[in-house]
Amino acid sequence: MSGAGRLIVVGLGPGDPAMQTPQAAAALAAATDLIGYGPYLARVPARPGVVQHPTDNRVELDRARHALTLAAAGRVVVVVSSGDAGVFAMASAVFEAIDHGEATWRALDVSVVPGISALLAVAARVGAPLGHDFCAISLSDNLKPWDLVEQRLVAAAGAGFVLALYNPASRARPWQIGRCFEVLRGVLPGSVPVIFATAVSRADEAVTVVRLDAADPALADMRTLVLVGSAATRMVAREAGTPWVYTPRGVG
Amino acid sequence: MSGAGRLIVVGLGPGDPAMQTPQAAAALAAATDLIGYGPYLARVPARPGVVQHPTDNRVELDRARHALTLAAAGRVVVVVSSGDAGVFAMASAVFEAIDHGEATWRALDVSVVPGISALLAVAARVGAPLGHDFCAISLSDNLKPWDLVEQRLVAAAGAGFVLALYNPASRARPWQIGRCFEVLRGVLPGSVPVIFATAVSRADEAVTVVRLDAADPALADMRTLVLVGSAATRMVAREAGTPWVYTPRGVG
Repeated sequence: MSGAGRLIVVGLGPGDPAMQTPQAAAALAAATDLIGYGPYLARVPARPGVVQHPTDNRVELDRARHALTLAAAGRVVVVVSSGDAGVFAMASAVFEAIDHGEATWRALDVSVVPGISALLAVAARVGAPLGHDFCAISLSDNLKPWDLVEQRLVAAAGAGFVLALYNPASRARPWQIGRCFEVLRGVLPGSVPVIFATAVSRADEAVTVVRLDAADPALADMRTLVLVGSAATRMVAREAGTPWVYTPRGVG
Repeated sequence: MSGAGRLIVVGLGPGDPAMQTPQAAAALAAATDLIGYGPYLARVPARPGVVQHPTDNRVELDRARHALTLAAAGRVVVVVSSGDAGVFAMASAVFEAIDHGEATWRALDVSVVPGISALLAVAARVGAPLGHDFCAISLSDNLKPWDLVEQRLVAAAGAGFVLALYNPASRARPWQIGRCFEVLRGVLPGSVPVIFATAVSRADEAVTVVRLDAADPALADMRTLVLVGSAATRMVAREAGTPWVYTPRGVG
């Protein structure tokens, strides 16, 4: 039966089912086994006969090896991520496991189904802050040294990129986002727009737009994406609601 | 009638209808007027009574003003982009037009529907090259000076970001991608993986994975996205087909 096994790494999008692609839905419908962080699995409609393997949100490499082992045994395994599967999510762990794992895993039918990443969903929600060159950086120092995070923040902000900051804060990493703003205030004007977006497209969505010199680290938790504009990024006041934020297409 | 007007900027995804979100399909179904570059409009199923306004792929600001004028007159206007609407696409031009246009445009019902951007679609196609910090840079020097492009390439590659290079080449900009590789060879090891991906998810899709020291600028045209790995990005040979490419989640 091992010839029939497959592994599909699927991005579910930010939460609203209307932002999940038909390709992702088709992969979920084909699965015999679903693997992922419990709250993400809870977003997948239950189907009789499908085995769910909920995990916590760490141990990505163990989860990837488990998925590969099941696929090698002939199962159709779908590994789910929120947002896009390849942006600070499970796809990288799967290929890392293949790279360092069983030789036979290289012959498996493995594919990745992209999803609407948080950075795209948040940008759309407030206007077009990613309208020009941009970077995505994880602020987690679980897998890289904090000094490197600071170097990258300075390099990217200093060169005029808009920044999408993933994993800005958690209970175990409470101070990094505050330090990040300190670093950025040394490089960028205080007037630069900062967007805190939590649970975008979900019932408890919260979006706040402030200036960098007024950015409050307490607005970020583990479900928040933070976008920091460049010196060119503009706020446009509206009659009601948060201002639009966009970065012009041209500079100079 | 002007109270009923709306403007929705929609990302159609990379081409495969299975990668277009239900949210995008719903916006297209609500439109009275469709505005966009001809080949993108050709991807939208025709509906009786819907007015199509095809344009060429420049004059974004004129197109945005036209869309806003129609929405202000009570039409339900959908502006279509390929990929995501906010990544080197039409959303930024729409908000730039609002920022500098009629005061009444700020009261219009404007929204953005995100789509699967080329960088996510290409990354998924080859593995997980965006598994760690990354940047998106347009190589077009129509709207920014070329010196700034080079500065950003050096800053981002030097700081360890994976690079997604939009607009790598066109008939009017034939040399930029070659010069870009020269610049990057001064900063990155020659072994870094480079992905040329043209028309991903479409019938004429072409994906090539090479080393930076062997990257041939002739592989890029105006429909190509180029991904350049970091020093940490790895290729994993498969039994058949192009190698997987991924960037590990951790460094240091």
